[in-house]
Amino acid sequence: MGGGAPISVQSMTFSKTYDVEATLDQIRRLCSAGCDIARLSVPDQKSASALERIKRESPLPIVADIHFNYRFALIAAQSADCIRINPGNIGGGARVKEVVKACKERGIPIRIGVNGGSLEKRIEAKYGSTAEAMVQSALYNVKLLEDQDFLDIKISMKASDADRTVEAYRRLRPLVDYPFHLGLTEAGTAFHAAIKSSIALGALLLDGIGDTMRVSITSELEEEVRVARAILRDSGRQPSGVNIISCPTCARLQSDLKSAVDEIERRTAHIAKPLNLSVMGCAVNALGEAKHADAAIAFGNRSGLIIVRGKIVGKYDEGELVDRFLEQVERL
Amino acid sequence: MGGGAPISVQSMTFSKTYDVEATLDQIRRLCSAGCDIARLSVPDQKSASALERIKRESPLPIVADIHFNYRFALIAAQSADCIRINPGNIGGGARVKEVVKACKERGIPIRIGVNGGSLEKRIEAKYGSTAEAMVQSALYNVKLLEDQDFLDIKISMKASDADRTVEAYRRLRPLVDYPFHLGLTEAGTAFHAAIKSSIALGALLLDGIGDTMRVSITSELEEEVRVARAILRDSGRQPSGVNIISCPTCARLQSDLKSAVDEIERRTAHIAKPLNLSVMGCAVNALGEAKHADAAIAFGNRSGLIIVRGKIVGKYDEGELVDRFLEQVERL
Repeated sequence: MGGGAPISVQSMTFSKTYDVEATLDQIRRLCSAGCDIARLSVPDQKSASALERIKRESPLPIVADIHFNYRFALIAAQSADCIRINPGNIGGGARVKEVVKACKERGIPIRIGVNGGSLEKRIEAKYGSTAEAMVQSALYNVKLLEDQDFLDIKISMKASDADRTVEAYRRLRPLVDYPFHLGLTEAGTAFHAAIKSSIALGALLLDGIGDTMRVSITSELEEEVRVARAILRDSGRQPSGVNIISCPTCARLQSDLKSAVDEIERRTAHIAKPLNLSVMGCAVNALGEAKHADAAIAFGNRSGLIIVRGKIVGKYDEGELVDRFLEQVERL
Repeated sequence: MGGGAPISVQSMTFSKTYDVEATLDQIRRLCSAGCDIARLSVPDQKSASALERIKRESPLPIVADIHFNYRFALIAAQSADCIRINPGNIGGGARVKEVVKACKERGIPIRIGVNGGSLEKRIEAKYGSTAEAMVQSALYNVKLLEDQDFLDIKISMKASDADRTVEAYRRLRPLVDYPFHLGLTEAGTAFHAAIKSSIALGALLLDGIGDTMRVSITSELEEEVRVARAILRDSGRQPSGVNIISCPTCARLQSDLKSAVDEIERRTAHIAKPLNLSVMGCAVNALGEAKHADAAIAFGNRSGLIIVRGKIVGKYDEGELVDRFLEQVERL
C-alpha cells in the first residue's frame, strides 16, 4: 500500500464477526465483487478471538476495527493483517505501548481512523468541527505511535460531508508521508452515497491523493465495491474493462443510440482489458472522439461508420452495425 | 447567472425541435424535475423557425444549440434566451458580426461550447488533445466576440474524461471573468455518467468553480436533472431537502438500520427545507454526528435515542422509534 502500488478497495462485513462462517461467506462475496481488503468490526472478546479462524480461510487480508478496547487489539494483532484503532482513546501510554509491541512483533500496520463525528474533546474545543480539527487529531494520534518508534501507519480522516473530508486530506498530505485510506463516514443511502463519495474521493484521486479507499453505503454488501471500482475507473486512476463514451441523446439523433449503447455495454461486460469505446449519435463530435477511442461507431441516418484506432474500417446498415462493431472489439 | 446567483441546472430535449408539441412536452417534464434551463438542438431551418412558438409557451428559458450554421443562429436569436455557438467555426468575421449584432439587439448571451472532441485543427496540432488546448480554444473564441465588443459570454469546456475537464476549467478560471457552464461530454451510461460527472463537476464545485451545469447521461429525460441536483446538494453547494446521514451496516449493529433509513427517506421525500438527519446504528459515532444534525436517531439494542438539535428528547422502543422521530422532523 502506498509507494506507487495500485489503489486498493476495501469494504466491511456486517455479519457478527464471531459468526465465523457468516463472516467468511461475506468476505468471499466481497472478494468476488473485486474487493482487495475486508474490514471486520471487533466490538467484543468473542469477535476478537474469532479472527484467527477467519484469517486461516479468508481469501482477503483482514483489518480488525477496534474502538477504545486495547485488549481486543492485543488479541486481534495475533491474526489480523492490520489493526484500525486510535491510540489516543485506548486509555494511556502503557496500553499504546502494548498494542504497538504486538503489531511490531507481527509486522502489521495500524490505521489511525479519525472521524469527524468523534474528535478528541480538547481538539474540537480549540478548532471546532473543522477539517483542521481532523488534521490535528490525526497528527496527535500519529505522534503517539511515532513516540514508540512505530512508523507502519495508515491514516483516514472521514467526515460526513465532502467539503470537510477533501480539505482534511489536502491539508494533511504535505505534512506526513504515510499512506492515506480515503472515505466519507455515514454517507447515506445508495444513490446519494455514490454521488457524495464520487465527489469527495474523486476530487482527492484527481489530486493524486489516496492509497486505499472505502465507499460507505447503507445498501447491499457488494454495492460499496462496485461504486469504489467505478470511482477509480472514472477518475482515470485505474483503467479497467470497457469504458464506453456515448453522447446524450438530442434532436440530431437519427438512430436508436440508447439501445445500441446498452447492448454494447452488456456484450462487453466480460472484457477485462482497458478499452475505450465511443458510440456517437451524429457527426458533430463523433470523429474527434473516435481519434481517442480504441474503437468507435459514428451513427448516421440508418447506418454508421466503424472506426478502429482512428481508421474507418467500414460503413454498415443499422441492423448489423453493433454486431460488426463487437467483432472489431473482440479482435482488440 | 454568475455573480453569486444560485448555480442553475440545464438539460437538453431530444425531441425533434421542429416538433413543437413534443418539445414543449419535454421542456415541461424537465421543469417538473427541477431543471432551470432547457437546451434545444437546432440542426435545421425548421427547428430554428420553431423556436418562436416554443418560446411563447415554454416554462423554462431556452438555449438554442447551433453548430456551424450562422443563419440558424440569426433565426434562433429572435426568440431564444441564449445561443450556443462557437464563433470560430461559423465561416468568418462578417458572419460573427451578424450573429453578435442579433444577440446584442435582443440582449441575449452567447455560450461558447468548447468540446475536447472537436477542437480547432490548428490548436490541436500545437497543444495536442490536452486541457490547455481546450483553454486556448475557449480564449480564441472569446476573443472573436470581444473584438466585436460583445461581453455577454458564458463558456463551457467539456471533455469525455474527468481529468482533462477539471484541469481545463481550473486553468481558465483565473484568466477570464465570464460565467462557466460545467459539464462532461459523452459521459456514457447512467451509472458511470453519474459517477464520472460527480467526480468532475464535484471537484470543480468544491473549488467554487461553476455557474450553471449539465450532467450528460444516455438515459431517461429526467435523470440528468436528478443527478445534477444531487451533485449540487452533495457537494454542499446547494442545500435542499432532507440530507440523511447514516452509517454503513457493520457487526456492531443491533437493529434493522437499513429498513429504518429507507422508511425515513421515503417519508421525508416531500420536505423541501434543508434538514440534516442522522440515523446511526450504534453509539460509536452517533452522538458526535447528532451534534451536527437537526434531528438524529442513535440506535441501541432494540431501542434508540432521539436527539433534536443536540438535545436528547426521548428513548423509544424500536417499534415506535421511526414514528416518533418523524414527528420531531415534521415539527422542524
